[in-house]
Amino acid sequence: MAITGILRVGLIQFRVLDFEQSLVHYRDRIGLNEVGKIDEDRIMLKGYDEFDHHSVVLRRADRPGLDFIAFKADSREKVQDVLRRTREEFGYTIEELNDQPGYGTIYLVNVSTGHKVGVYSDVALAEKTPMIHNPHIWDEQPRGFGATHFDHALLYGPNAAETVRWFTDVMGLAITEELQNAERTGNICTWLSASTRGHDVAVLEFPEPGKLHHVSFHLQTWDDVGRAADIMARYGITIDAGPMRHGITRGQTIYFFDPSGNRNETFAGGYEFFPDNPRRYWDAERAGEGVFYYNKALNSTFLSVYS
Amino acid sequence: MAITGILRVGLIQFRVLDFEQSLVHYRDRIGLNEVGKIDEDRIMLKGYDEFDHHSVVLRRADRPGLDFIAFKADSREKVQDVLRRTREEFGYTIEELNDQPGYGTIYLVNVSTGHKVGVYSDVALAEKTPMIHNPHIWDEQPRGFGATHFDHALLYGPNAAETVRWFTDVMGLAITEELQNAERTGNICTWLSASTRGHDVAVLEFPEPGKLHHVSFHLQTWDDVGRAADIMARYGITIDAGPMRHGITRGQTIYFFDPSGNRNETFAGGYEFFPDNPRRYWDAERAGEGVFYYNKALNSTFLSVYS
Amino acid sequence: MAITGILRVGLIQFRVLDFEQSLVHYRDRIGLNEVGKIDEDRIMLKGYDEFDHHSVVLRRADRPGLDFIAFKADSREKVQDVLRRTREEFGYTIEELNDQPGYGTIYLVNVSTGHKVGVYSDVALAEKTPMIHNPHIWDEQPRGFGATHFDHALLYGPNAAETVRWFTDVMGLAITEELQNAERTGNICTWLSASTRGHDVAVLEFPEPGKLHHVSFHLQTWDDVGRAADIMARYGITIDAGPMRHGITRGQTIYFFDPSGNRNETFAGGYEFFPDNPRRYWDAERAGEGVFYYNKALNSTFLSVYS
Amino acid sequence: MAITGILRVGLIQFRVLDFEQSLVHYRDRIGLNEVGKIDEDRIMLKGYDEFDHHSVVLRRADRPGLDFIAFKADSREKVQDVLRRTREEFGYTIEELNDQPGYGTIYLVNVSTGHKVGVYSDVALAEKTPMIHNPHIWDEQPRGFGATHFDHALLYGPNAAETVRWFTDVMGLAITEELQNAERTGNICTWLSASTRGHDVAVLEFPEPGKLHHVSFHLQTWDDVGRAADIMARYGITIDAGPMRHGITRGQTIYFFDPSGNRNETFAGGYEFFPDNPRRYWDAERAGEGVFYYNKALNSTFLSVYS
Repeated sequence: MAITGILRVGLIQFRVLDFEQSLVHYRDRIGLNEVGKIDEDRIMLKGYDEFDHHSVVLRRADRPGLDFIAFKADSREKVQDVLRRTREEFGYTIEELNDQPGYGTIYLVNVSTGHKVGVYSDVALAEKTPMIHNPHIWDEQPRGFGATHFDHALLYGPNAAETVRWFTDVMGLAITEELQNAERTGNICTWLSASTRGHDVAVLEFPEPGKLHHVSFHLQTWDDVGRAADIMARYGITIDAGPMRHGITRGQTIYFFDPSGNRNETFAGGYEFFPDNPRRYWDAERAGEGVFYYNKALNSTFLSVYS
Repeated sequence: MAITGILRVGLIQFRVLDFEQSLVHYRDRIGLNEVGKIDEDRIMLKGYDEFDHHSVVLRRADRPGLDFIAFKADSREKVQDVLRRTREEFGYTIEELNDQPGYGTIYLVNVSTGHKVGVYSDVALAEKTPMIHNPHIWDEQPRGFGATHFDHALLYGPNAAETVRWFTDVMGLAITEELQNAERTGNICTWLSASTRGHDVAVLEFPEPGKLHHVSFHLQTWDDVGRAADIMARYGITIDAGPMRHGITRGQTIYFFDPSGNRNETFAGGYEFFPDNPRRYWDAERAGEGVFYYNKALNSTFLSVYS
Repeated sequence: MAITGILRVGLIQFRVLDFEQSLVHYRDRIGLNEVGKIDEDRIMLKGYDEFDHHSVVLRRADRPGLDFIAFKADSREKVQDVLRRTREEFGYTIEELNDQPGYGTIYLVNVSTGHKVGVYSDVALAEKTPMIHNPHIWDEQPRGFGATHFDHALLYGPNAAETVRWFTDVMGLAITEELQNAERTGNICTWLSASTRGHDVAVLEFPEPGKLHHVSFHLQTWDDVGRAADIMARYGITIDAGPMRHGITRGQTIYFFDPSGNRNETFAGGYEFFPDNPRRYWDAERAGEGVFYYNKALNSTFLSVYS
Repeated sequence: MAITGILRVGLIQFRVLDFEQSLVHYRDRIGLNEVGKIDEDRIMLKGYDEFDHHSVVLRRADRPGLDFIAFKADSREKVQDVLRRTREEFGYTIEELNDQPGYGTIYLVNVSTGHKVGVYSDVALAEKTPMIHNPHIWDEQPRGFGATHFDHALLYGPNAAETVRWFTDVMGLAITEELQNAERTGNICTWLSASTRGHDVAVLEFPEPGKLHHVSFHLQTWDDVGRAADIMARYGITIDAGPMRHGITRGQTIYFFDPSGNRNETFAGGYEFFPDNPRRYWDAERAGEGVFYYNKALNSTFLSVYS
């Protein structure tokens, strides 16, 4: 296979304050399908165009924020290789997670930024996958924004360079773009891809550990981004920024908030990345343009609001 | 790296009857950039969003048709591995091609369908690549349809099953979709991907060897497909079918002809393929819907016109 | 007021064979809102972006086809003026229709092509109009294709030139485009507008009286046209032609059939017409391009299938 | 004719500091066609989809700002009627302008807000109009944003209510929307239409007379708005706000600045207005949402930056 090892970010669990409003938000507006409950405090969702059992878990808690993100490996061997090298080369602690329906063991690595980053290879197909035999483009007309899948997350935390090195050296992700610090001694933020996406994950150097800047859901076109903005405006979803384009990744995007205070993103466009592409890099003083390509300045919430 | 081995179809050389009209077509309408001449009879072109030296060669000849397509490998080792296994397992003859500017040796394999399929690892960056340092989404506003890159080709020839097996077993491509014959003893057509594309190449069982059904260029959205159709209509480009969607690959598409009689395609949309996705398959009697998702019937030229 | 007299085509009543399938088609797919029943055999519908009580009536009957279309006048004086001049200058019979809920009297004129064309000035606002006070762009996210309103119809019948003259001289519509016959002695088809639309109605010379070629519903963009095509393909709606563009009116369009055999159209794009614009005209031999701008040839059903 | 009297805003003359940069901006980026020079200090432009001789005049001066806007009437009688009633009912002074190539006399009325608002009926067709005989949708592929026509302007000045009354009572425009002041004693801003557009002109109550908030050019879709934003970002055009949607008029828009400091707008979408539609109205405290539908708050420049 030409795509091997770590295939994609495939699962995210984060915290919400309330289920009723969260379901309106994630199911009816963003358009994810409700898969079911794990227990009283966890609901599973997935994009209509995803094959795996589920890709998003909302956990009810008293504050928002990330529990973990996890990556799909193409084999148990790859998982074992990641675990071995993680222990040997990084010494990170690893937890086993065995209670996600449809999933085999998910190994959660405690990386230097204070996040839990999982790796797994065994996951059942969803009950309702995209069609396979004489398939229609979708089985039921998508709801709300019509998000196809969980796409990526941006993580904030300390010692980002080390976590990035773990992603590249152990996980085998490629750096697609980097925002270099003013001194050119390292990166403010680094974008990493397991496949041809502009990124599966990005990591920003930040004093507080384990923070989530945003969870992103994929839309198909700029037209879908505009329709999503209309739905947000109509139903009172707070828009943080956009519709706009990122200079970095070229994504067409809106940042907005879920009812619990987690930042979400809709993401379309972007280029097709290959590992033989030269790495794109940005100067610190062009950060505004990198993130807010049209307005060319970071807004006040970009670094101050996270969960 | 998560994407390894064969990365993508990266180069195609085909024949045109005339340069003047062909340049109007490929450069001014489709929007490829002219890279330069190899010799009196060959012109190099590339999409504005491609990094490699060139991706399309038009060779002046007295009849249209395909010279070869070629795939980029991530290493010389992968190329050697392909060559060794090709000789050992398939016994195909292999030619060396050393006169493509910017390219190291391209090894052309004579596969069972009568096509020459190349593999190479060494290619220089284009003089004008996409921007890398504080990059804009493009350096100059794209022309014509604004095609980003050469995307894929559909090949017609005999013994397609064997060529498909060579693509999967030796080249490492994945089958994304297949159109099964009525007897379910094999495929009428098979779609193969090196990465997350719906396909880099498709192979259709056909009595005549070495035929080209179409060369496809990538557009970004359905809106771009519509704009391309307007340009075709305005400038007298003959449309074969579309704008429409394929059921197979979900691509949004127009089939049209270059001034020499080669079928072209503009292609947008489609899904993001992963090698752990179940293979999609189509019944022979649903072929119409697979190719012409909206009209649900093959048009009369689909099997009868090729180059 | 700058727009005076006849404002727009505002109401159409046509026949369907069955209500259940028709409602799935017109309400769930095209996205019209169900307003209610007039009686056992008539259902009222309207586009979500229309203010008037209803704009479409489906009448249950044993064969498809048109009952009438009707135009909104800005005053009773205009209606009376139309009626007087119709009697005096054309001698057409006029019927009064008084049973459309929300509507005052609709006067149906029996024009030369064998159609009933109504005129009225009094109509109540719908119970659910577009929002007016701090309005959102829509109150509920549109369903299906998201059609905004009934847009126009194409009528087939004899003595078209006379009906066209009635539309211009008595009703005050402007001819926006004409397809001239080969002898240049008259028009094969004429497009007429009451406002800035490319047309509210078109009239094609045809031996059979009172025929309906298509009823058209307005979409906002080419992207909406593509989404409509996807929905048609998914739910088995028969597409006659498109997605495509008309040369005449520049509309972006799909012709398709309702379950009873009436041809529908989705229509987006087109230009903004003003009465001081020169009249656009087409030669008979360019009719193919005028209707099917991309394929440049009328399909076999264009003149042979109607209701 | 159903559209009578004042047809549309058809001409605007405003000041720029420099021709070279202004032509790059208005011709190459916005995509207007250069019609020619009136004299050393005035250049004529028009949208590719406009029939009249020209619609935009850039006058070289030492500060930006509006010279005049002017409306096309369908007859000299309408012009005379406007002039007579202006003198009798409003007592405004009227100037004659006779040096615009292709135009007959333009009568400039000095309205209460301190603007010159012209009216004219005689104007020659442009040398290069949209095609009329077997027309293509455009003759040459549009440049830059592909703006079709000058669409509307927003005027800032004192005694806005009186100017609005002149527009409705004398000119015959319809009020489409109004933003009422907090005391509900009048409007902060009023939107006026001569035809089915959401507005040809809007007037905002403001202490300084004769000010221009923005000149707007029409694009066809949200997709065009996004492409325009990309071009602005690439070529360093300063974006004031957007891409976004207005709640008022539903327009899809970007506010940006020309090199001289005049605010421009690209405008797509919006509804089809008819004079029998109920008037939409907005509460003062919802002004943010009315203008910036997505972000729901006026930005700091909206009231403070004008020319």
